[in-house]
Amino acid sequence: MSAFIDFYFDFASPYSYVAAHMIEEIAERHKRSVIWHPVVIGNAFKAVGGAPMQTLPLRNEYVEKDVARLARYLGLPYEHPSSYPVPTQAAACAFLWGQDRDPERAKEFARKVFAAYFVEDRNIADLDVILEIIESFGLERAAAHEALNSAPLKDRLKAETDLAMARGVFSAPFFIVDGEPFWGYSRLPILEKWLADGPF
Amino acid sequence: MSAFIDFYFDFASPYSYVAAHMIEEIAERHKRSVIWHPVVIGNAFKAVGGAPMQTLPLRNEYVEKDVARLARYLGLPYEHPSSYPVPTQAAACAFLWGQDRDPERAKEFARKVFAAYFVEDRNIADLDVILEIIESFGLERAAAHEALNSAPLKDRLKAETDLAMARGVFSAPFFIVDGEPFWGYSRLPILEKWLADGPF
Repeated sequence: MSAFIDFYFDFASPYSYVAAHMIEEIAERHKRSVIWHPVVIGNAFKAVGGAPMQTLPLRNEYVEKDVARLARYLGLPYEHPSSYPVPTQAAACAFLWGQDRDPERAKEFARKVFAAYFVEDRNIADLDVILEIIESFGLERAAAHEALNSAPLKDRLKAETDLAMARGVFSAPFFIVDGEPFWGYSRLPILEKWLADGPF
Repeated sequence: MSAFIDFYFDFASPYSYVAAHMIEEIAERHKRSVIWHPVVIGNAFKAVGGAPMQTLPLRNEYVEKDVARLARYLGLPYEHPSSYPVPTQAAACAFLWGQDRDPERAKEFARKVFAAYFVEDRNIADLDVILEIIESFGLERAAAHEALNSAPLKDRLKAETDLAMARGVFSAPFFIVDGEPFWGYSRLPILEKWLADGPF
């Protein structure tokens, strides 16, 4: 069996949204499976990867324009969220909770959360929004609510984030294939060459 | 006549080196001319675009790997410079000095400076290296030396940098086409769609 593709994403990262729509198809073409890893690109990442977007006026303005144009280029729906960025701990914890139950449905959940934020302009920092999406899968709201508020799940998200950084992840989207790191949606063609031809 | 493509680059930016090898061919396919603008991505840019690479350990390590891999992917020669990054004021001033005389030869000069730094591992912060490259064009070393040390040329580089930032440039490589900004080598396919089909 070939090694997995590790896909690191932040639910408030527009380029993660774009990558989430592309990575499964690429993996399928090369008979690989993808493991999705939600990370929260926050304070811990500042020291290793860069300042948060919102403090960089020119870059921030550019990114907003670039993402909308990129979505048009790729034919993806996109509306810049009215609150941007937002904390993504709740969404990330919900994903991990769901992933333990069914990794493939958790991916569907992730796509719904991305759409809620980047298409429907819903505030995914709001726990009620996350619980509503969970309910749309026929899962019980009360059980989900209890799990999302539990210390073990929050601790796990922190540990997952530490592990990501230990593997060299400093931003999102980020991919690791056969130990090789790829940062950003824009490196997907190079990742695909790697999958097709092996190391180069 | 169609509008020019403005190409902003820093001589110590490996992605600028990559872009410098691609932009003229793209422009030619769409009958556009390219104006090259050297900028020095330094302190002034920190506030608008991001922290300098060398302070971000994980990102720095990744970029070194990514550039080498990208060069192999594109078939470009590349060796990571033993001093990286280096100040590029002298190279940028020399470019501006040459551009006033012959814009097309100045582009050749730029390619030679990029090759000196990213292929031959020469220190382009060293004025002697720059003067040697100028001499290889049959220009007089003494005249070039005098011009490069002159206050007007240094002031001009500062003004060019301020102008770039006023136009929204916060990093390199950066392109502006018909007022539309494109950041990074990776947006060249989207820039090319813009040239081919107009605004989208």
